[in-house]
Amino acid sequence: DFMNALEEVHPAFGVSEEELQQVIQNGIIHFDGVVDEILRSGELFVEQVRTSTRTPLVSVLLHGPPGVGKTALGASIAQASEFPFIKLISPDSMVGYSESQKVAAITKVFADSYKSPLSVIVVDNIERLIDWTPMGARFSNAVLQALLVLFGRRPPKGRRLLIIATSSQRPILTDIGFSETFDSELRVPPISNLRALEFVLREVELFQSSDERRQVIKQLQEAGFEGDGLSSKFQIGIKKLLSMIEMARQEPDDVAQRLTGALVGLGM
Amino acid sequence: DFMNALEEVHPAFGVSEEELQQVIQNGIIHFDGVVDEILRSGELFVEQVRTSTRTPLVSVLLHGPPGVGKTALGASIAQASEFPFIKLISPDSMVGYSESQKVAAITKVFADSYKSPLSVIVVDNIERLIDWTPMGARFSNAVLQALLVLFGRRPPKGRRLLIIATSSQRPILTDIGFSETFDSELRVPPISNLRALEFVLREVELFQSSDERRQVIKQLQEAGFEGDGLSSKFQIGIKKLLSMIEMARQEPDDVAQRLTGALVGLGM
Amino acid sequence: DFMNALEEVHPAFGVSEEELQQVIQNGIIHFDGVVDEILRSGELFVEQVRTSTRTPLVSVLLHGPPGVGKTALGASIAQASEFPFIKLISPDSMVGYSESQKVAAITKVFADSYKSPLSVIVVDNIERLIDWTPMGARFSNAVLQALLVLFGRRPPKGRRLLIIATSSQRPILTDIGFSETFDSELRVPPISNLRALEFVLREVELFQSSDERRQVIKQLQEAGFEGDGLSSKFQIGIKKLLSMIEMARQEPDDVAQRLTGALVGLGM
Amino acid sequence: DFMNALEEVHPAFGVSEEELQQVIQNGIIHFDGVVDEILRSGELFVEQVRTSTRTPLVSVLLHGPPGVGKTALGASIAQASEFPFIKLISPDSMVGYSESQKVAAITKVFADSYKSPLSVIVVDNIERLIDWTPMGARFSNAVLQALLVLFGRRPPKGRRLLIIATSSQRPILTDIGFSETFDSELRVPPISNLRALEFVLREVELFQSSDERRQVIKQLQEAGFEGDGLSSKFQIGIKKLLSMIEMARQEPDDVAQRLTGALVGLGM
Amino acid sequence: DFMNALEEVHPAFGVSEEELQQVIQNGIIHFDGVVDEILRSGELFVEQVRTSTRTPLVSVLLHGPPGVGKTALGASIAQASEFPFIKLISPDSMVGYSESQKVAAITKVFADSYKSPLSVIVVDNIERLIDWTPMGARFSNAVLQALLVLFGRRPPKGRRLLIIATSSQRPILTDIGFSETFDSELRVPPISNLRALEFVLREVELFQSSDERRQVIKQLQEAGFEGDGLSSKFQIGIKKLLSMIEMARQEPDDVAQRLTGALVGLGM
Amino acid sequence: DFMNALEEVHPAFGVSEEELQQVIQNGIIHFDGVVDEILRSGELFVEQVRTSTRTPLVSVLLHGPPGVGKTALGASIAQASEFPFIKLISPDSMVGYSESQKVAAITKVFADSYKSPLSVIVVDNIERLIDWTPMGARFSNAVLQALLVLFGRRPPKGRRLLIIATSSQRPILTDIGFSETFDSELRVPPISNLRALEFVLREVELFQSSDERRQVIKQLQEAGFEGDGLSSKFQIGIKKLLSMIEMARQEPDDVAQRLTGALVGLGM
Ligand SMILES: Nc1ncnc2c1ncn2[C@@H]1O[C@H](COP(=O)(O)OP(=O)(O)OP(=O)(O)O)[C@@H](O)[C@H]1O
Ligand SMILES: Nc1ncnc2c1ncn2[C@@H]1O[C@H](COP(=O)(O)OP(=O)(O)OP(=O)(O)O)[C@@H](O)[C@H]1O
Ligand SMILES: Nc1ncnc2c1ncn2[C@@H]1O[C@H](COP(=O)(O)OP(=O)(O)OP(=O)(O)O)[C@@H](O)[C@H]1O
Ligand SMILES: Nc1ncnc2c1ncn2[C@@H]1O[C@H](COP(=O)(O)OP(=O)(O)OP(=O)(O)O)[C@@H](O)[C@H]1O
Ligand SMILES: Nc1ncnc2c1ncn2[C@@H]1O[C@H](COP(=O)(O)OP(=O)(O)OP(=O)(O)O)[C@@H](O)[C@H]1O
Ligand SMILES: Nc1ncnc2c1ncn2[C@@H]1O[C@H](COP(=O)(O)OP(=O)(O)OP(=O)(O)O)[C@@H](O)[C@H]1O
Ligand SMILES: [Mg+2]
Ligand SMILES: [Mg+2]
Ligand SMILES: [Mg+2]
Ligand SMILES: [Mg+2]
Ligand SMILES: [Mg+2]
Ligand SMILES: [Mg+2]
Repeated sequence: DFMNALEEVHPAFGVSEEELQQVIQNGIIHFDGVVDEILRSGELFVEQVRTSTRTPLVSVLLHGPPGVGKTALGASIAQASEFPFIKLISPDSMVGYSESQKVAAITKVFADSYKSPLSVIVVDNIERLIDWTPMGARFSNAVLQALLVLFGRRPPKGRRLLIIATSSQRPILTDIGFSETFDSELRVPPISNLRALEFVLREVELFQSSDERRQVIKQLQEAGFEGDGLSSKFQIGIKKLLSMIEMARQEPDDVAQRLTGALVGLGM
Repeated sequence: DFMNALEEVHPAFGVSEEELQQVIQNGIIHFDGVVDEILRSGELFVEQVRTSTRTPLVSVLLHGPPGVGKTALGASIAQASEFPFIKLISPDSMVGYSESQKVAAITKVFADSYKSPLSVIVVDNIERLIDWTPMGARFSNAVLQALLVLFGRRPPKGRRLLIIATSSQRPILTDIGFSETFDSELRVPPISNLRALEFVLREVELFQSSDERRQVIKQLQEAGFEGDGLSSKFQIGIKKLLSMIEMARQEPDDVAQRLTGALVGLGM
Repeated sequence: DFMNALEEVHPAFGVSEEELQQVIQNGIIHFDGVVDEILRSGELFVEQVRTSTRTPLVSVLLHGPPGVGKTALGASIAQASEFPFIKLISPDSMVGYSESQKVAAITKVFADSYKSPLSVIVVDNIERLIDWTPMGARFSNAVLQALLVLFGRRPPKGRRLLIIATSSQRPILTDIGFSETFDSELRVPPISNLRALEFVLREVELFQSSDERRQVIKQLQEAGFEGDGLSSKFQIGIKKLLSMIEMARQEPDDVAQRLTGALVGLGM
Repeated sequence: DFMNALEEVHPAFGVSEEELQQVIQNGIIHFDGVVDEILRSGELFVEQVRTSTRTPLVSVLLHGPPGVGKTALGASIAQASEFPFIKLISPDSMVGYSESQKVAAITKVFADSYKSPLSVIVVDNIERLIDWTPMGARFSNAVLQALLVLFGRRPPKGRRLLIIATSSQRPILTDIGFSETFDSELRVPPISNLRALEFVLREVELFQSSDERRQVIKQLQEAGFEGDGLSSKFQIGIKKLLSMIEMARQEPDDVAQRLTGALVGLGM
Repeated sequence: DFMNALEEVHPAFGVSEEELQQVIQNGIIHFDGVVDEILRSGELFVEQVRTSTRTPLVSVLLHGPPGVGKTALGASIAQASEFPFIKLISPDSMVGYSESQKVAAITKVFADSYKSPLSVIVVDNIERLIDWTPMGARFSNAVLQALLVLFGRRPPKGRRLLIIATSSQRPILTDIGFSETFDSELRVPPISNLRALEFVLREVELFQSSDERRQVIKQLQEAGFEGDGLSSKFQIGIKKLLSMIEMARQEPDDVAQRLTGALVGLGM
Repeated sequence: DFMNALEEVHPAFGVSEEELQQVIQNGIIHFDGVVDEILRSGELFVEQVRTSTRTPLVSVLLHGPPGVGKTALGASIAQASEFPFIKLISPDSMVGYSESQKVAAITKVFADSYKSPLSVIVVDNIERLIDWTPMGARFSNAVLQALLVLFGRRPPKGRRLLIIATSSQRPILTDIGFSETFDSELRVPPISNLRALEFVLREVELFQSSDERRQVIKQLQEAGFEGDGLSSKFQIGIKKLLSMIEMARQEPDDVAQRLTGALVGLGM
């Protein structure tokens, strides 16, 4: 099924396999029910595009704080669709592009998608694609306008397209005119309870024994972190958590203390 | 008559048939008297241009919230005119154009129209044509100025032109200098009562039986939606409604619940 | 005399006859004494330029709300001068021009005028020539500066020039530096009393009988419009009035009601 | 002497005779002592440049409201110097120039002046040269910076230069950085008393008899204008006054009334 | 070990040895424990990159007031890594570059780094690289966007990269969107106690005898400087201190007094 | 010694002798002790650059109100260094340069200086080099950024450089990011007491006899100017004073009165 499909790889014409894998290098850890819900919603959108003739264009926004896994989830959904055309539009491949080069590159991907009966385009990191900076509220209006039109333009007869966009600046999107643009919006939350944290620690095998691991969780509880994530301010993206885990791994004798130290530092 | 004419297709020299059909793919559902009124007004403007020598130029604005059907209605009126020259000026075909390319493309359509004794031009989505973004109130002044002049410039002797413009940013139009530009303005309202909703559901045959349909309406009534649309905050554009209907269709066993869920979500 | 001359047409070297006629297509209706006063003032300026050697340059501004007839009156005065050089500088013929193309086109007309002993230039719609938009107070400073200099630059020895400018944005002109630029300013008012309205209705022969016409006036009086224009808020430009009249004409059975309906709608 | 020299014309190498005469076409009317004082000061600056080796560069600003005669007085002083190099830098000859063309043209005049042992440059209408507009406080910083440097740059060894600049926007000059730039500043005032007005009327021979003239003055006194200009708000530039006089001349039967009418209109 | 490695020089393919040495010309003086801590942290990041496959990209920010030694410390850490690819991206080598030349030069260094299995890039003085000026909050958004993407873009498979950035405008970095960009941030503090000062004076051998040196410290204590740096406002970057020391050296007879004078001047 | 050296001229390879002399045409008048102090400080910086290997780059800012002699003093210090490379970077030689031409010209001088073992660069009038205008706080960020980098960039090994910058806009320098840029800042004050004024008058031999001169001083004292400059508002730059003296010289019979008149005018 879909969940399993995420693990497999199906090379196909028009699919940028390598780029997609690059952004899900560390896999998807199912640390919380919400992860499965997001993937399931994605599966439904894929099906709608595949089957409904009345909605040849469906667009979804994955949003949430930096580093919560928006890109990895978006790419996973796209990959699992097994559509003949799957592309990633990412600022990573457009460094130093002029406004018009960006617009051209983006438009090209959409134009190409119109040649395939079924397509998915992941438009990653909208705020970076439009060169957004909070200071002076600067951004590329040319790229913005292109996205606004492309996100609303129906593919030609007989073609169907799923757009998966990601952003960590949801409020800005409204300010620049993206309200009512998406058919659906899914929030990707940070890790905010100890159960999810423990799940991740087990998956990445940071500790030799589960005793050690439980010890760390206990310490964190004593430091004021609470298991249910409600009363505590503890919030961390999976990306930063994985990075902290690797830093802690540097000092084998002291892993537990380095990790709790870093997490407690965050909590303040 | 006019109402029926909307259903037929009359290929003619200078008419961009395909583009027009693309924007009314899902047809016009006559869910409310106001739909007919708008089409009837359109018919009158068409007649005025056809017959009155003193007003060789007539311009109308269709405005209303996103997704209420402005483009589809404008295109329908244009198509029904059966004028020899009917064109759609749409941001969809100008992605990535520079300011001056846009101005040139727009001006070209007007210049071409002056060669036909009778013409209709649909200028779709003014705010997108001028690259409007609320943040920083940015827009292309070059395109704006071209539109302001073209909307007021009389066609040469013996030529007559009907301009149908659409916008979901009516207040902005005043701010940028469009007041007093149009001979007439027509507001396209969202669906805001259950009777209209039921009409649509019947037309798209979402449910197998009319019992099921009535059941959904009843549920919505119980959820606080009222039939007359006055006391409730329920408002939805036909475009979004059609999209929700297709999403609901994805889960055949659960259509009614998915639809009411989505609509109730909106109402908040 | 001058009044009659307005009716005649005198083709002459350097006169853009066709353009002038285009803007007074519907003629001048003498619905109020102020119309004659404006034409008479224009005649005096024409004479001053023709005779006084000390003021080889005279500039006049016709200003007033949109659609009151500024362009038609300016063109009429120019045409009646019978000067060998009469030109219209209008945004209509500069759609899509760059700033520098506009400046070049405008400057060219002035340079050409310096070759004729007597010239009139109608500079129509200053705010549109300078690409003015209220949002962000944007405009072309290059065109503005060119106008400021050209409006104050004396023609070479032995040449005389009358400049007739029009604008519906009088207050803006002061803000951008046009104060003290014109030798004289004439306000063109809207129609604001029933007598003038009745005069127009008679001239355009909207009704078959004068009874019908008087009936309409009476209805308007009852609707609160007053004959002297003082106590009522009723104000309409001749251009919009003529457009409403043509719309009303579309439904022969219902002319009177459509017209009063439209006018009452305005009054609110 | 100097006063007389103003009347004569001395063609010389490097002198733009024609342009200078163009701007003093209507001559200098000595309607007030201040006119002579300004000309006398100008004469002294000319002498300082001619004789003092320690101040090879002297710059003077003539400022005052629009139309008071700044340009005519500046040109008169320059012409009377009889220096081998006399040039007028005026916005009139730079319509449509780009920023860099303006800078080049201005710089060229200064570079040329450095070839003459003695030079005068009249830099007319600074605010127009820098494309100043009050709305948005826009101006050409490139031209401004060029002027700031050129006004302070010493000519090469053995060369001497007098700069006479004019402006009707004295306060702006300070705001854009022109304070401390000029060695001296002279204010050119408007006409503000009836004696000066009468002097002008006599000079231009508007009336056949001096009785008529005195009659007009009397009427103005009765209308509230006072002879000493202190208690009244009556202020008019010589340029506008001469223009009003010519308008009045248009209706020979009614000269007195038209003139007083126009002047009284001003006073309000 | 690492500390010693800083003193040695290991020429290697892809290492800009000379540039690195240029910025640590005056060596690293270990005047405070924090200096060693920063170098030790740097060493750990180097190790993480060398060993952990899950974090192929690690980025660190060295920030602190002007002249505290950020660049020298960053370069020292890079040099000590002995990675085959070590480069310095510095505004010093980009004077007069256009925005796009800067972006190209920066992107080139990153692209080159991707060819080496292990790389360090020192991105020096971010605020200068982006042409930041506080007045009007101006900066190059093009360079900023390039840095934002490059700092977050994973190197290709099998490549690992350590980024060491420096800035003396930490708060600005947040304002322009750099929050959450770095894996770690290290603050480089100024010298703020007399013990550290005395350490430096001894190292640079400003005084012939240690008596003289202690005398100066005593004078400073009397002038209100306190040894613990808590109660006093005395704060100085190592760079400025070294410069003051050299100025004092100019007057051999008066070294002590010149130095204390300069330091006391600072303290105000 | 240094003081005397200022009077002599030592032509040398890489020295722009002529330009330097141009700016000190009227010599240096030692009207106050502060003049000597500034020159003495300059001499010390020259020595530091000549001798200290640890500070191969020293930068000094001369600042003060317009016309106090900053440029002349900077040029004098540079000339007295007798370094093989002495250049003046001045806005005077860059009129009409584009931003990038300016940056190129400035960068070129620094690059050239790196070829000489010992160099002085006088960077005159920073605010003009960066096209600063207070209105709208406009300036060339490109030139500013180039200066910021060049003022902090160490010359290559074995090269030493003294930078002497001047500015009459000290507060602006901080606002645009120049704080902490200079190793030292020297304030050049205006003349503000009668003793200094008398010294200047004697040096320039304005009066035939010292009696006349003393008479003037007495008059100024009576007019409220005080000898110590504390209680009075009298402040004048040496440049303006020399200019006033030359103006007064124009009327030999009236020198004293013209001078006191002008000075009293200033004091208000
Ligand atoms: N449940 C999960 N969801 C998403 N990512 C996961 C999950 N489990 C592990 N990961 C890993 O965590 C990382 C998430 O990083 P990703 O770049 O997708 O985050 P992001 O939200 O897009 O960050 P940014 O805000 O910087 O764009 C990836 O390396 C991914 O393989
Ligand atoms: N009565 C109706 N009026 C308009 N459109 C209708 C109607 N009934 C069905 N439709 C369908 O609804 C859709 C309306 O979408 P359309 O693009 O015209 O809306 P819009 O208001 O122009 O949206 P936007 O604000 O995004 O431009 C079309 O697919 C059209 O075929
Ligand atoms: N008395 C009149 N004065 C002016 N125009 C009149 C008069 N009577 C009839 N007309 C007709 O009315 C129309 C006036 O339109 P015109 O374009 O001159 O108005 P305008 O004030 O220039 O409008 P805008 O503000 O849009 O530039 C013309 O068609 C003209 O022929
Ligand atoms: N005493 C006078 N001083 C100046 N000009 C005079 C005088 N007497 C007559 N004139 C005439 O008055 C006119 C003054 O116009 P001028 O263009 O010099 O004014 P201005 O102050 O430069 O105007 P603007 O503010 O528009 O630049 C000229 O035609 C000049 O010949
Ligand atoms: N402990 C130290 N840490 C850093 N630099 C030191 C230390 N001891 C001596 N130095 C010397 O001090 C100078 C520090 O200057 P550096 O340019 O690194 O400072 P910076 O903080 O980068 O300055 P800026 O804010 O101007 O970029 C270098 O010459 C370096 O050799
Ligand atoms: N003691 C002095 N210091 C400086 N200049 C002096 C002194 N005595 C005489 N001078 C003369 O005074 C003039 C000073 O002008 P300078 O251009 O140096 O002033 P500045 O402060 O640079 O002016 P600006 O603010 O316009 O740049 C020069 O001509 C110089 O020869
Ligand atoms: Mg992402
Ligand atoms: Mg639409
Ligand atoms: Mg008009
Ligand atoms: Mg003038
Ligand atoms: Mg640094
Ligand atoms: Mg100077």
